[in-house]
Amino acid sequence: MPCYLTHLECTLCGREYDADRLQTLCEEDGKPLYARYDLEAIARAVTPADLVGRVSSLWRYREFLPVRDDANIVTLEEGWSPLLPCPRLGEELGLPHLMVKDEGQLPTGSFKARGLAVAVSRAKELGVKALAIPSAGNAGGALATYAARAGLPCYIFMPEDVPLINQVETVAAGAEIYLVRGIITDCGKLVRRGAQERGWFDISTLKEPYRVEGKKTMGFELAEQYCWQLPDVVFYPTGGGTGLVGMWKAFEELEAVGWIGPKRPRMVAVQSEGCAPIHRAFQNGDEYAEPWEDPHTIAAGIRVPAAVGDFLMLRALRSSNGTTVTVSDQEIYEASTDLASKEGIFPAPEGAATLAGLRKLRASGWVQESDRVVLFNTGSGLKYPECHPVDLPVLEP
Amino acid sequence: MPCYLTHLECTLCGREYDADRLQTLCEEDGKPLYARYDLEAIARAVTPADLVGRVSSLWRYREFLPVRDDANIVTLEEGWSPLLPCPRLGEELGLPHLMVKDEGQLPTGSFKARGLAVAVSRAKELGVKALAIPSAGNAGGALATYAARAGLPCYIFMPEDVPLINQVETVAAGAEIYLVRGIITDCGKLVRRGAQERGWFDISTLKEPYRVEGKKTMGFELAEQYCWQLPDVVFYPTGGGTGLVGMWKAFEELEAVGWIGPKRPRMVAVQSEGCAPIHRAFQNGDEYAEPWEDPHTIAAGIRVPAAVGDFLMLRALRSSNGTTVTVSDQEIYEASTDLASKEGIFPAPEGAATLAGLRKLRASGWVQESDRVVLFNTGSGLKYPECHPVDLPVLEP
Repeated sequence: MPCYLTHLECTLCGREYDADRLQTLCEEDGKPLYARYDLEAIARAVTPADLVGRVSSLWRYREFLPVRDDANIVTLEEGWSPLLPCPRLGEELGLPHLMVKDEGQLPTGSFKARGLAVAVSRAKELGVKALAIPSAGNAGGALATYAARAGLPCYIFMPEDVPLINQVETVAAGAEIYLVRGIITDCGKLVRRGAQERGWFDISTLKEPYRVEGKKTMGFELAEQYCWQLPDVVFYPTGGGTGLVGMWKAFEELEAVGWIGPKRPRMVAVQSEGCAPIHRAFQNGDEYAEPWEDPHTIAAGIRVPAAVGDFLMLRALRSSNGTTVTVSDQEIYEASTDLASKEGIFPAPEGAATLAGLRKLRASGWVQESDRVVLFNTGSGLKYPECHPVDLPVLEP
Repeated sequence: MPCYLTHLECTLCGREYDADRLQTLCEEDGKPLYARYDLEAIARAVTPADLVGRVSSLWRYREFLPVRDDANIVTLEEGWSPLLPCPRLGEELGLPHLMVKDEGQLPTGSFKARGLAVAVSRAKELGVKALAIPSAGNAGGALATYAARAGLPCYIFMPEDVPLINQVETVAAGAEIYLVRGIITDCGKLVRRGAQERGWFDISTLKEPYRVEGKKTMGFELAEQYCWQLPDVVFYPTGGGTGLVGMWKAFEELEAVGWIGPKRPRMVAVQSEGCAPIHRAFQNGDEYAEPWEDPHTIAAGIRVPAAVGDFLMLRALRSSNGTTVTVSDQEIYEASTDLASKEGIFPAPEGAATLAGLRKLRASGWVQESDRVVLFNTGSGLKYPECHPVDLPVLEP
């Protein structure tokens, strides 16, 4: 199958870069680069009907992905996650069209598999010899897993309070893992030092151009699962925001090839009260987000005090007529047991946060009964036993 | 879509039962009942080509499933799990056609989702008001999850040393859970008492006819993923054995409708050295298996000292020219890190046991280079952090 990747382009200044050399951020302004494709050629080559019967993974959108040679694809069949109706919560909230996009069923139990499958594939294709990443947990687990599948060494730096299972999965996969007394930005500094001194490729989100290409497939899947009529509102738990901006990029590409029209969902960024830099910037009307001091929340995946893609998120939220909302740890916990006990969907705390955010925007009237609403559960609750302490009595037989 | 279920039939004496009443075991001999279908009508109604583009779950085999009304289907889109090539382990073992069927990506992180999705759907259809189960862990988590999705109460009895995550997932799903100072057979006794005294429906494996209908879809998927040419050898971790006998039933149904020929894989039951009743019976040439005294293994899912379907397993193993093999806990642990670090597939200990078993049968020559071999990874390693102790140093930022 031909590859339609043409070049890379800075998301701020528009400067173009060669896509077939290893690139990181724009040399001019330090902003993320986006992969660009020959969308006219794709529009001539493929139609939505061609997707029927393709693989049940994100690779069904092969034409929109950056890997040149199929032999370089590193995959565990990630993606094509289910869109699950939530009739009980829908009735409770007065929302007959409430759905959860369940990323907990992906390999490594989280949506991080998407970005790292594509980024590791492309890194391998471009000759990378070692990978490194700072991670709040799930990205590290996913990198370790895909690096193992690619046969590449990797180095992972995580805050010392990262969930136990993330430590276990990286160690089992044979990665070199280091815990750091600090937060994810401290981990990022150690990765940058290793990249300079030891030649690791820093595969941090949006600091190379291809993780967002994997994440954007959530947008393709939403479009296909809604029969090319996008939903009205999308709730997305927002840390680095790659999924949010990735979906926005997907919608632009789908409109360019004529598979959807100009209508977009209202995008909602859900953050924690204890770490809400994008919420603060959105509500203040700022173009960029100031770093958040002293971030804290049980939802480790959205404990991201500063994101290189801040302006891209803020642009997408505003262009979509979307908004932001914050939730407390207690609200996250309650939403988690709500989703598990009423719908059988046991979410990661980040996924639970979207239900907590929906409750608030439904109460305020911002979300209305007729809205077709999607909550993104970005991971499996099975990775977070710490969030659900249990102490059960023992019976004699 | 019409339902082709015709009746139930005792697997030992052949006595027939009404499929539209709630049934448990045969009243004559206490053996499991199998669902029977009008396979001639199915053969007229559908062909393999009709499956292309169907849902990416076990419900793609709708004609072969026992639920009469689609409205009663309780689903999280379980099944259609990936069949993943294992090139590095394959090279190491001299097996160029080595694959893993990865059930760790299913809802609830294990293959138990299959049986319980179908059994809970059918129980709901037949008017059951409360469900109960003894469980070594994953079946309890899956029942809690599907009962929650069905809106039915459930009662779960697990040995006190069940992995923490199984306790957490059942509690989060709102089930009533009891830990028992004993093993799974002790839990089974408490379920039977509750069934008699409080009217719970005992959804223990093979003690009602429909969990095996869910599990058999692993056989359909193998056939479809191998383009209707079955593999040569299937390694399956064997506790209750429902998957093993379910796949065997699937192959019979597929041959009856003409989608496959008479060729079958050699089926291999993998058990733990610390609990190997089927292995012992197979090697002794017995028709039934004696209960195993003092069962122990880190692979809780195969710590099953007595199984009601023992004779069905032994028949399938012998009819297939298959065999049995046992592995130690240390071999399971090593196979687990092998799969995770060499192929990026982080297995449950039960799944890891299949690789350990393959190593032995490859060394003995029972498995040959030309064999197309499938290992069943029945669950995600993410549910078993206890099996992989880690103690990492902490860096200063």
